[in-house]
Amino acid sequence: MSPPNVRCLFLIFCCLTTSALAAKTRHFRWDVGYMFWSPDCVENVVMAINGQFPGPTIRARAGDTIVVHLHNKLHTEGLVIHWHGIRQLETPWADGTASISQCVINPEEPFVYRFKVDKAGTYFYHGHYGMQRSAGLYGSLIVDVAEGEKEPFHYDGEFNLLLSDWWHQSVHEQEVGLSSNPFRWIGEPQSVLINGRGQYNCSLAAHFNNSTSKLCKIKGDAQCSPHALRVLPNKTYRLRIASTTSLNSLNLAIGNHKMVVVEADGNYVDPVAVENMDIYSGESYSVLITTDQSPSMNYWVSLSVRGRKPNTPPGLTILNYYPNVPAKLPILPPPVSPLWNNYTHSKSFTNKILALESKTPKPPTRFNRRIYLLNTQTKINGFTKWSINNISLVLPSTPYLGSMKHNLKGAFDPKSPPERFSHHYDVMKPAANPNSTHGSGVYVLEFNTTIDIILQNANALAENVSEIHPWHLHGHDFWVLGYGEGKFSEKNDEKKLNLKNPPYRNTAVIFPYGWTALRFVTDNPGVWAFHCHIEPHLHMGMGVIFAEGVNRVKNIPDAAIGCGLTAKLTKNNGL
Amino acid sequence: MSPPNVRCLFLIFCCLTTSALAAKTRHFRWDVGYMFWSPDCVENVVMAINGQFPGPTIRARAGDTIVVHLHNKLHTEGLVIHWHGIRQLETPWADGTASISQCVINPEEPFVYRFKVDKAGTYFYHGHYGMQRSAGLYGSLIVDVAEGEKEPFHYDGEFNLLLSDWWHQSVHEQEVGLSSNPFRWIGEPQSVLINGRGQYNCSLAAHFNNSTSKLCKIKGDAQCSPHALRVLPNKTYRLRIASTTSLNSLNLAIGNHKMVVVEADGNYVDPVAVENMDIYSGESYSVLITTDQSPSMNYWVSLSVRGRKPNTPPGLTILNYYPNVPAKLPILPPPVSPLWNNYTHSKSFTNKILALESKTPKPPTRFNRRIYLLNTQTKINGFTKWSINNISLVLPSTPYLGSMKHNLKGAFDPKSPPERFSHHYDVMKPAANPNSTHGSGVYVLEFNTTIDIILQNANALAENVSEIHPWHLHGHDFWVLGYGEGKFSEKNDEKKLNLKNPPYRNTAVIFPYGWTALRFVTDNPGVWAFHCHIEPHLHMGMGVIFAEGVNRVKNIPDAAIGCGLTAKLTKNNGL
Repeated sequence: MSPPNVRCLFLIFCCLTTSALAAKTRHFRWDVGYMFWSPDCVENVVMAINGQFPGPTIRARAGDTIVVHLHNKLHTEGLVIHWHGIRQLETPWADGTASISQCVINPEEPFVYRFKVDKAGTYFYHGHYGMQRSAGLYGSLIVDVAEGEKEPFHYDGEFNLLLSDWWHQSVHEQEVGLSSNPFRWIGEPQSVLINGRGQYNCSLAAHFNNSTSKLCKIKGDAQCSPHALRVLPNKTYRLRIASTTSLNSLNLAIGNHKMVVVEADGNYVDPVAVENMDIYSGESYSVLITTDQSPSMNYWVSLSVRGRKPNTPPGLTILNYYPNVPAKLPILPPPVSPLWNNYTHSKSFTNKILALESKTPKPPTRFNRRIYLLNTQTKINGFTKWSINNISLVLPSTPYLGSMKHNLKGAFDPKSPPERFSHHYDVMKPAANPNSTHGSGVYVLEFNTTIDIILQNANALAENVSEIHPWHLHGHDFWVLGYGEGKFSEKNDEKKLNLKNPPYRNTAVIFPYGWTALRFVTDNPGVWAFHCHIEPHLHMGMGVIFAEGVNRVKNIPDAAIGCGLTAKLTKNNGL
Repeated sequence: MSPPNVRCLFLIFCCLTTSALAAKTRHFRWDVGYMFWSPDCVENVVMAINGQFPGPTIRARAGDTIVVHLHNKLHTEGLVIHWHGIRQLETPWADGTASISQCVINPEEPFVYRFKVDKAGTYFYHGHYGMQRSAGLYGSLIVDVAEGEKEPFHYDGEFNLLLSDWWHQSVHEQEVGLSSNPFRWIGEPQSVLINGRGQYNCSLAAHFNNSTSKLCKIKGDAQCSPHALRVLPNKTYRLRIASTTSLNSLNLAIGNHKMVVVEADGNYVDPVAVENMDIYSGESYSVLITTDQSPSMNYWVSLSVRGRKPNTPPGLTILNYYPNVPAKLPILPPPVSPLWNNYTHSKSFTNKILALESKTPKPPTRFNRRIYLLNTQTKINGFTKWSINNISLVLPSTPYLGSMKHNLKGAFDPKSPPERFSHHYDVMKPAANPNSTHGSGVYVLEFNTTIDIILQNANALAENVSEIHPWHLHGHDFWVLGYGEGKFSEKNDEKKLNLKNPPYRNTAVIFPYGWTALRFVTDNPGVWAFHCHIEPHLHMGMGVIFAEGVNRVKNIPDAAIGCGLTAKLTKNNGL
């Protein structure tokens, strides 16, 4: 053998071993069940994983394979887990959406999720069946850059802040209210939680003059005791922030500390410094903070409600400068959050989030198909619903992925949902006829094409009401080409779309009475949910289904199709 | 054709048409879902059928076929319905036991129960998954004698009393407590219900001196308003009484009126007059009352708790003599119920229930196999359980009926559970070692043989505690050969067994520290649960599984096996 060949073989060998060393398969064994817990110092029942609430954090490197052996220990409820932000390339059956990507995992049935985390970023996971996310079924999923790779920014340490909202009423009862006629709304949460910990009916900062709440008396070892962020002076920290709220839009601020936003939904963004940041349900961010303030004291981290008139006091924890003790309360009052209905402030923040061009793919300049999705609150037989182009989504009992892959008839509405809504629809007023219909139809998208979605907001059932909806797409990131006011106009708005450095994300908000334009490429064979990430809104039908290249999907495990019309297609129900 | 042949054909034709006219197929369409309801005037969430609580009464004639088209409208919970007391001859898949006779019906999945009601009697139906019976999933099933047949007693009218107990805590939360370590017991119910209606924290009879409760103020149209029994003087009425309580043993009495017991669990009994009657969960009775008291007033019907120190006041309704208005409260105080722990009274009542010999099959005089089942409260890894011969039942994810019919390996514990317990076990004391194990093994019974079961009660975990357990057998009636004190002794107790006129039933109680001897014939191919009918006890493992002649079972519908290891055996998932 000649010397060059040996060198060549050696190089190949090195590559193979490096890759084998770098990419790991990480196994997790999870028991999911209810337990008694006091997230905000009031005892309640939460959905826990291995006795933990929130569930255990999964930490991996880009390129790793995650294997979660799930054991449903609920008594009568099915279960699935969605890995929010993970695109599930080649594993669409592992997306964890009940009735879409898989059959629900029934009590005592085994199920194994196996998927690759292909891209570094801040992600999370959560239940995606009924309102089980609201019941507490969530946790963090952090993907570091691959071995040898570097982040495009420096930090000395990091913290993980998983944000949620919490009700004392059980989700079962919430679901009954939402499905009742007369309709019963779930109302505002009793508390907002930072890493599953909050303060109900009291404030950690009540001793400041502007607070009307009573002071919380929380023992350090209580389940609701806030976790302080312990920092050294003059360092840079990365805060990984994700919102899995059921309902609330949030604003996060840290007393005396600016935040530099560097990541959104697992993609780098052009660094931007802000005093406080908005975060909507389904979004994640990384921000950098520099501990350049007086180390003689601690500072507040404050989490407040936006976009809905808040009945819920801000959730607080402490930025704890060494060598102060964490229990030392800050001398300065908590940061003042922007007014809940200051949408100018919200839009300003959202518009600042732009792609880091050097690290982000650019959108195709043209689209192949543009779908207009009108978001309206409607009525079906007197029941209150949310509808998209006048169809309120109901999921079929046989999951789409299996029934579409195998061309089974009768599994869902064969008719494609409408591509657009009437030109005459006045988005600024309640609908003249608020009645809509149920539907389970699918937008079948041609494989490897560019799709535009114009999300169009409108007035809800009541006059002068239009709500925020954060829309989340499964299986893809999309480019957010722009946000606008009123009805989207091809004539006037098309030219304003940002094709230069649009943020690349998996969740984007529509503001009241506004529109949001998204673009994505159908390069991921599967069936994917696209929906409002507000749990009760999705429960009331606010979502659509996309399918692309389903004939290319391979190796769906038996357990994902072992129900309904696809049960007969299983071989051994092996995993 | 000669005249005799014509006559013969005519006769055959008559028989055919009579039979076709007589035996009907009765179709029901049921939507099962949660709704807000106030069973005891406190608003709560109940499991309802077609918006009714309790569910609609099914009324049929012996020989009819019942077809229930079920639509699960729950959000995340599976569902099954058991037809309590119906033997499911040739339809063991329709017995409605999750993990035993069928796969659970998941939300939005269709399922059709189709079975024959072969025998007249007072039955009921209820959920048989998790603790869904306690959540309110129950209703009455009344089978009249076949066309042309007669009951062996006369009555002028009838009433249906379905009895239950009710908690304000949701069953989901109850289940969490029962499955927690430390164990949290559900406690006594907030109220007892007659036809789904009760009085919480007040009494309809508070104006009597001996009552310490405050007077209920219930509007006549309230969901909790008691239904009066409106009667004419000097008539005989049949009260059909069934208990679907989660926990409580009950005693029913009617002021100034004796009751003559004529039916138990769908079988005629030798008429016996009583002042008040005990009824355990899972039992049903018919009693006759004669309205021979002064028609100038109304009388109380009183339902009180037995066998557990009652924290729950008696539930009341009114026996309303025409022409009094139902709202006219009785002048006399409610009947005084026997003391909760007067077991002598309980045993006396139970021992009075004997078969009406002319109408009841006689037991075989010999048994082929006798199984001794020791009932103990135990611990598994610190969790509190109930065990039978030291095994606490856990159900497999693939139902037995499908996996046994198709001889699938690995669906459940292949080892048969123990046939008896140690001779040395002292039933009067807490166990020296209270630890037990989980198990899903099956008692495989030879087809068409006679099986004896000796149910042996014992001391629970705490000293001087032994509880009542009403055991219910699916798919069969059994003869109750006798009840006794202490440990069953072949030497002393065998000869006391009643082979002459033992009551033929589907539910029989074991008294504290006592035994109960049962006999049945394995003439019904299928897999059948035999368990304590106290819902939290079954939830904690208090049951066993019998299988007989499974190879003879035919025509299991796809929907009953479309899950787990049997999913692959379905054809079209047609019904």
